[in-house]
Amino acid sequence: MTELSLGEFEFDCGESVPDLTVAYEEYGEFTGDNAVLVCHALTGSQHVAGRRRRGDTAGQAAAWWDDIVGPGKAIDTNEYYVVCANVPGSCYGSSGPPSEAPDGEPWGTRFPAVTVGDWTRAQRRLLDELGVPNLHAVVGGSVGGMNALDWAKQHPDGVERVVAVATGARLDAQCLALEAIARRAITTDPDWDGGDYYPGDGPVQGLALARQVGHVMYLSKSSMEKKFGRRSAGMDAARDAFELDPAAGFFPYREVESYLDYNGERFAERFDANSYLYLTRAMDSYDLAGGYDSDADALAAFDGEALVLSFTGDWHFTVEQGEALAEAVREGAGRVAHHVVESDHGHDAFLVEPESVGPPLDDFLADGVRGRAVSDTVEEADTGDDFAPVHTSLFSR
Amino acid sequence: MTELSLGEFEFDCGESVPDLTVAYEEYGEFTGDNAVLVCHALTGSQHVAGRRRRGDTAGQAAAWWDDIVGPGKAIDTNEYYVVCANVPGSCYGSSGPPSEAPDGEPWGTRFPAVTVGDWTRAQRRLLDELGVPNLHAVVGGSVGGMNALDWAKQHPDGVERVVAVATGARLDAQCLALEAIARRAITTDPDWDGGDYYPGDGPVQGLALARQVGHVMYLSKSSMEKKFGRRSAGMDAARDAFELDPAAGFFPYREVESYLDYNGERFAERFDANSYLYLTRAMDSYDLAGGYDSDADALAAFDGEALVLSFTGDWHFTVEQGEALAEAVREGAGRVAHHVVESDHGHDAFLVEPESVGPPLDDFLADGVRGRAVSDTVEEADTGDDFAPVHTSLFSR
Repeated sequence: MTELSLGEFEFDCGESVPDLTVAYEEYGEFTGDNAVLVCHALTGSQHVAGRRRRGDTAGQAAAWWDDIVGPGKAIDTNEYYVVCANVPGSCYGSSGPPSEAPDGEPWGTRFPAVTVGDWTRAQRRLLDELGVPNLHAVVGGSVGGMNALDWAKQHPDGVERVVAVATGARLDAQCLALEAIARRAITTDPDWDGGDYYPGDGPVQGLALARQVGHVMYLSKSSMEKKFGRRSAGMDAARDAFELDPAAGFFPYREVESYLDYNGERFAERFDANSYLYLTRAMDSYDLAGGYDSDADALAAFDGEALVLSFTGDWHFTVEQGEALAEAVREGAGRVAHHVVESDHGHDAFLVEPESVGPPLDDFLADGVRGRAVSDTVEEADTGDDFAPVHTSLFSR
Repeated sequence: MTELSLGEFEFDCGESVPDLTVAYEEYGEFTGDNAVLVCHALTGSQHVAGRRRRGDTAGQAAAWWDDIVGPGKAIDTNEYYVVCANVPGSCYGSSGPPSEAPDGEPWGTRFPAVTVGDWTRAQRRLLDELGVPNLHAVVGGSVGGMNALDWAKQHPDGVERVVAVATGARLDAQCLALEAIARRAITTDPDWDGGDYYPGDGPVQGLALARQVGHVMYLSKSSMEKKFGRRSAGMDAARDAFELDPAAGFFPYREVESYLDYNGERFAERFDANSYLYLTRAMDSYDLAGGYDSDADALAAFDGEALVLSFTGDWHFTVEQGEALAEAVREGAGRVAHHVVESDHGHDAFLVEPESVGPPLDDFLADGVRGRAVSDTVEEADTGDDFAPVHTSLFSR
């Protein structure tokens, strides 16, 4: 594991830790102007790409964007110096609830509350340590996209290009509700024990439930119908993870339930429950407009280029939220393209459709909003005026 | 409480109880041809309307359709003899897990698994006892709508008109997933104790979580945004239902979370956790086409009239599912109108929009699909041929 100690770090909440550790991965060679910061999603890790190694982050957290990041890929590590850091509060090597506090015990819930803004500041300090003064681009999906947007807000002159994938300026009420349910599943599990469960397994059942709620958010209604339908998981499917009542035996154990049970349990093995509480709160509380009058005001100082990538089947972060983001950039000094991908894969599309995500991302990193594979919801008038704001978008119809 | 003992009852699962009790309410006078059976939704009760009395079912289960059922209302009890029965497996007086078994102890999970088909057969036997040979209409919403459809399937000659509100022929994968999560929340709560928690409070936390998942299903994304947005519940809002970690204090307690917590806890006070397991399984497993080649085959023998009422903001049972139902009736001997209500209230619309539900329901009960306030997705050609199947529906565009 590659990690750096950044010394004392004060969080937005006002509390500090004496020595913040940030675990990170780097790919490619830094040439002075080719740095690309990739921001991971809620339960992702710094291991954005590359071979899985023993002792690495497990499951979906490992090499989570290997189809996108690597030699000759959309984020080409022959060309770019790519850095990805595990966010503070997480559990893959950066300081967070399960990491060791100065007293030698796990921080647990003594760890300060974290925000997306804290992540941005920690990343900035990590890049200082790595000798990277400015970023060619920052790229992130889901809450990682919020993190990328936060860069344009906090360091408008420190980043040339921002790619916000499957994200929005803030969560809506429906997603806030599901996140609250997920956290309640954890905190009402007696094995959570007020967060003081180390070195035990902790609230395995509550964390699995939380993840199951997440999985429903990450898929679309129609993709679930296609993927699972009402099919039974088969006679020999074992429901052995927890006790059931005899009446359950009269009904089929369906593929969708089997999928949720399997993934819920695998997730509980790889992730820390307190980290899940901390990171979902950071996502929930993120508001791009925070400290400003509007999203546009928050991004007004950003005069680089932005690519907003959204997916038609995504209800966690909708195409409408993507368009609102693009509108906010349009009002300011920056240039933006809102590239909408027709997809049935729900929120997961940004992870599972590299063929849709790769080309616009690749071309945007090279040529900005003028990139060949980059489309926009706003059609430009063919008047010779390159930036005529014609706004005949698919949203103004 | 009004209840009848129906004697031995064999359930679809093959198990029997020696004496099935059905709790029911009746409104109006039976005149021989004016009986209307109302089927309640998942956690509803027989108390469809009327004054709330001490000792009655609590909360949302009491007088749950009082705006629709009563003297001079859409289901006019001056005109119709209305019967509503608590379904077997529930907890409002009919036999179910919390009721007393022959050994004097609560049935608990020894109670046989129940299906929607069992509900229909129990209702038929109740009506026999009440001296009602045929129904003018059966009306139900949500899983109660499945129950109403099941009447058209099991007793095509025993009911003239069927009103299926906010329902479908079967649940889709997304809803099956959320139901499975809800049940897992109950069964992984240690207080569930294998279902053997009587006379204790049982898995209060798990049942509250299950209900919270339900509430998200019952609302629409946009109605949640309007109702709650990201607003804080206020400085003095108490989060006292369960322990939290200190970091939670840095973030607002939002209205949407307060709503979920309040309703989750009230529900856990009024409903039985085992009943929740049993009734959600009955809903999940219901498939109108079960035993037939298709939904249309299942309804082929029904030559009465059907009203399918669906709501544009409902994602629990979608307008598309309503249309598929209507298509199934159209293929058979019955006549059908699919009345689509423009609504932002999600699945709850059928409960909270009496102004939308009442008029078509009222006119359909009186005049069938020709009722003045009844609309259909299929436009009739103005050819003088009353039943030309022109199928220029909003779905064939």
